[in-house]
Formats: sequence, structure tokens, C-alpha cells
Amino acid sequence: MALESISISDEVRAKLETARVARLATVDFDGAPHIVPICFVFDGSVFYSGIDRKPKRVSPDRLARVRHTSKRPQVALLIDEYDDDWTRLWYVLVRGNGELVADPSERRRAVMELRAKYPQYATGMLDDEAAILRITPQQITSWGKI
Amino acid sequence: MALESISISDEVRAKLETARVARLATVDFDGAPHIVPICFVFDGSVFYSGIDRKPKRVSPDRLARVRHTSKRPQVALLIDEYDDDWTRLWYVLVRGNGELVADPSERRRAVMELRAKYPQYATGMLDDEAAILRITPQQITSWGKI
Repeated sequence: MALESISISDEVRAKLETARVARLATVDFDGAPHIVPICFVFDGSVFYSGIDRKPKRVSPDRLARVRHTSKRPQVALLIDEYDDDWTRLWYVLVRGNGELVADPSERRRAVMELRAKYPQYATGMLDDEAAILRITPQQITSWGKI
Repeated sequence: MALESISISDEVRAKLETARVARLATVDFDGAPHIVPICFVFDGSVFYSGIDRKPKRVSPDRLARVRHTSKRPQVALLIDEYDDDWTRLWYVLVRGNGELVADPSERRRAVMELRAKYPQYATGMLDDEAAILRITPQQITSWGKI
């Protein structure tokens, strides 16, 4: 839905679909920013990220990114790639809202997409019933060599 | 100064000194997070990042990261490296405050350190009088294979 009003080029879309890692910023209860690297999939409309069962041995709602978004849903997601040749630098900045996926069928679909993109998940790191964070973009901006 | 009370291992210090890129999160005037990739130096105590003259053709105080920290100094800086071998993943999360360097001699020292680390700056992308953001850590946490 969100992307009906957000136009992105085919090149930006390709970056979002193929990038292996993104950095997710949330805002904590004191209003301070927090960042973690995340694996994710982009389905053309929204982003999904799994709350891994391992190696983080804590319940999903204890993880900072989940606690933060439950209070302050606004998130920023950065997809970029560093290169010492600075003429090749680029980034895509996604700003929007993060929320745990409540619907079981949407959650299972996200788990399947994440497993398809990351064979690493096949070793049991992402349960069928894993908690999934959905990031719905409100703004997507890009910069540089895309 | 800040690091007198923050102990980091030699391994974490080495990562902070050698990493070529970090991702900087700030919080905008609406309380929403924002992220950009930055080049930086770590002098063992604080982080410095240059506000490049090019290719961003705007005055330094117009840049989002600078505007945000002038109102909300809290920042988060993530240093990490993605690898498809997830047993090798690591990150260092620095949380602290960001501020433009006011003292000319501190600014010149930071410019020299940045040019020494990044030969790319030698081509005129970082003026002698470039604006420099200082990030003073209040908390440094690390995770994974460091």
C-alpha cells in the first residue's frame, strides 16, 4: 500500500531487493537513537526482518528494536555499500514505521521469503513462528551511484 | 575524556580504528530516526567525521545530521561488517553525543587525521576549515566475533 504513493526507480528497487544487510535505527524511550545491522527482505512494498531465535537468546519483545517500535514506531533503514572509490558510493534511506507482524499468514510468508533469500536461516535460526518486524516505508530517498 | 570511564578491549579498539565506514543515526525534529553512512576517525577517545565540501553542495548547517544534533545531541554510531558466514558477524554500537567542533585547533587536528586515514580527502574534498562533527561516546557495546 505504502508504495503506491512512493515511486522508486528500477535501480533503487534492485538495490533494495538484492542487498544482504541493512542498518535499522530506532529511537529509545529516552528519545536517543539506536542502530543494529539487520537481514531483511523487500517484497516491493514493505520490508520484513526476522527476530532470530539464535544467537540472541532473549524473547523477541525484549530486543531493543522491538521494544522501541512498540512505543515509537518511527524507524529508519539504511541500505548502502562502502567502497574506497568514492565515485561509486550510494545509499538508499527508508523512513517509515516498524511493527511486529500480527497476522500468522503474513508472518509465515515473510519467514519463507527470508529463508529463500538467506539459506543461513535454513539451519533452524528462524522458526516457522518467528517474530517478524514489518517496516512500512513512508519516504524513500536515494543518493549517489545507483 | 569520555573513555576514561568506558573500557573497551584492544580488539574493539582495533575495529574502531580500522573500519572505513560507520552508520550514524540522529533523531530529527519530529523525534524520528535518520541514518547516513559516514567516514570517520577514532582517536582513542572520541570520533570525528567531516562534513564534506563536495559532493554535498549545501552549507554544513543545512545537513540533516548537523541540524539534528544541534537540537538533539544524542547519536548512535554503528560499526559493523556483513558476511554471509554468520559465525563471523560482529558489530560495535557507540551511543553518545554529537556536536560541531568549535575550537579551530581541534578542528584542524581532526581534518589531518581524516586526511591521513582517507587519501580520498587529499583531492580537496575536505577543506582546512571544514566543519567537523565530534561524537563523544557515553556507551560502547559490542557483539559477535570480535
